[in-house]
Amino acid sequence: MFPYVSPPDESAKRDALARQDRLTKPAGSLGRLEELGVWVASCQGQCPPKPFERPRVVVFAGDHGVAAHGVSAYPAEVTAQMVANFLNGGAAVNVLAATAGATVRVVDMSVGADTADDVSKFKVRQGSGSIDREDALTAEEVRAAVEAGRAIADQEVDEGADLLIAGDMGIGNTTPAAVLVAALTGAEPVAVVGRGTGIDDQTWMRKTAAIRDALRRARKVSADPVALLQTTAGADIAAMAAFLAQAAIRKTPVILDGVVSGAAALVAEELAPGARLWWVAGHQSTEPAHKLTLEQLGLEPILNMQMRLGEGSGAVTALPIVAAATRILADMATFESAGVAES
Amino acid sequence: MFPYVSPPDESAKRDALARQDRLTKPAGSLGRLEELGVWVASCQGQCPPKPFERPRVVVFAGDHGVAAHGVSAYPAEVTAQMVANFLNGGAAVNVLAATAGATVRVVDMSVGADTADDVSKFKVRQGSGSIDREDALTAEEVRAAVEAGRAIADQEVDEGADLLIAGDMGIGNTTPAAVLVAALTGAEPVAVVGRGTGIDDQTWMRKTAAIRDALRRARKVSADPVALLQTTAGADIAAMAAFLAQAAIRKTPVILDGVVSGAAALVAEELAPGARLWWVAGHQSTEPAHKLTLEQLGLEPILNMQMRLGEGSGAVTALPIVAAATRILADMATFESAGVAES
Repeated sequence: MFPYVSPPDESAKRDALARQDRLTKPAGSLGRLEELGVWVASCQGQCPPKPFERPRVVVFAGDHGVAAHGVSAYPAEVTAQMVANFLNGGAAVNVLAATAGATVRVVDMSVGADTADDVSKFKVRQGSGSIDREDALTAEEVRAAVEAGRAIADQEVDEGADLLIAGDMGIGNTTPAAVLVAALTGAEPVAVVGRGTGIDDQTWMRKTAAIRDALRRARKVSADPVALLQTTAGADIAAMAAFLAQAAIRKTPVILDGVVSGAAALVAEELAPGARLWWVAGHQSTEPAHKLTLEQLGLEPILNMQMRLGEGSGAVTALPIVAAATRILADMATFESAGVAES
Repeated sequence: MFPYVSPPDESAKRDALARQDRLTKPAGSLGRLEELGVWVASCQGQCPPKPFERPRVVVFAGDHGVAAHGVSAYPAEVTAQMVANFLNGGAAVNVLAATAGATVRVVDMSVGADTADDVSKFKVRQGSGSIDREDALTAEEVRAAVEAGRAIADQEVDEGADLLIAGDMGIGNTTPAAVLVAALTGAEPVAVVGRGTGIDDQTWMRKTAAIRDALRRARKVSADPVALLQTTAGADIAAMAAFLAQAAIRKTPVILDGVVSGAAALVAEELAPGARLWWVAGHQSTEPAHKLTLEQLGLEPILNMQMRLGEGSGAVTALPIVAAATRILADMATFESAGVAES
């Protein structure tokens, strides 16, 4: 379904590593900032890398049938209300993106109510199935969601996006995310269940039971990523997984967000092996499944700020760090150009 | 010498905490970002806080006699060369500040060579004394350096700086920083010595011996912060300590940088107790003394990126995070204004 993923450019990486040592600073003294700059150069295939001109956040919104069975602190109507909030620029991700010089697009894949026409063009259904007892999607719907994710990534890259972030919005969506992580890492339900939006102990018990039931269904298809998306993900997460895979195919760097984006990324790596080389982890969320995800993907989070909002908020908070790392390689003087003695 | 430090505003802090819970996100879901926004509001005495308009980095440059005794990987002439590099905008802190919307000022307090007139107005001497065998400064010189630090903070605040960062530049300056940290935390030389700009094992042994000898001299005066600056700091670090204390007196928030800024901060907290409430720690550097410093000040670093450059580079890398936290409180919609249901 997805073509072969080319790795980031090795020659640009070597140039960037060599350039870091010629800049007016002790070699290695910018630590992780140096690594991130080298990664950007290798993704762009050029050194020095070009500062980002059009970083773009795409928020995939969808409702989940399992939310009706008491796994969230919030009622499901909040998903559609938040889509309106995104469009009005009032949500956290809007504010953080504006601060970081990024723009935000919202895509309604499966919100349980009608939303504005310009965000629902790719909509697959109203609410995905309750994964503890039924498939999230039909075979046709999962294909449509995956095609939508690919088409959206293509659109964004064709319109000049040079860095992508996938955000999530959907009441109940940490439940499918946790199940996907458990299915793909072999973890037990109790190791992946988290407090989500801030649930109480009763809700926690219901959520753990829902994860256990859904995981039984998920494990049967965990070797087939599309079947897993159909059974367990929902249209929002399926589209996000395809978006992340397609970003890699289009050689566009991605900053991953929290547990929902991480779960989609785990599936994307199955869809398009090697895609993870095109991603960095923006942050470590407080959701326990997220830690397992980053370990499995071999990604070290840039930030650890006890965030757990989703929407792409953690990734976009890390964006200025990635942008700064890029600027270091692009704009700093070298020992030669500045006439500074070396060690 | 320094007047009483007023704490940040409690009423603005309460308003900010209450506002965080009315914004369209689960309470607490932005984690540390919420805490930082509340801190900015309390420093500004208003909620919502105003986005920063003039964040300012002041780099305090100075040479250290101890560098002549083989404690650094770089020759001392690099300090003056780097001052020129700052003025030309080619150093890491210039690039990072430009990315973060901050401006950079360089002050030559004690560089071992002549520098441009407009940066050497406060210059106390050429190079501070070799602290392993003599005082860094005379009594008159330490007074002049402290007065300079205060005057520079006053100037910056009077000219509209609404957030301050103190950076350092000086070959050999992690040696006095380590001694100050050991003197004020009770740590042993071996617990505070670090690789600085990247020293080899021979240099490490010389540096540890220099720290041991300097610490013997420092411990005798560690209860008197001005005498400690005279004995152990040098004019650059003395001015920086006074600058950090005066920023707090002028109710201006500060992002601390690495081990040199941290050592100055430890002394500043002795000069003006309570000043630390006006500071956040931008990052955790790889210098072992820095961890002890942050523990003693009770500050949790925002970033942990294995940075060890100084110049204010870690603080200014964290600036976009603090700015984003401020924008969240200032610009996000509330549940009421957005018509979103609460949990």
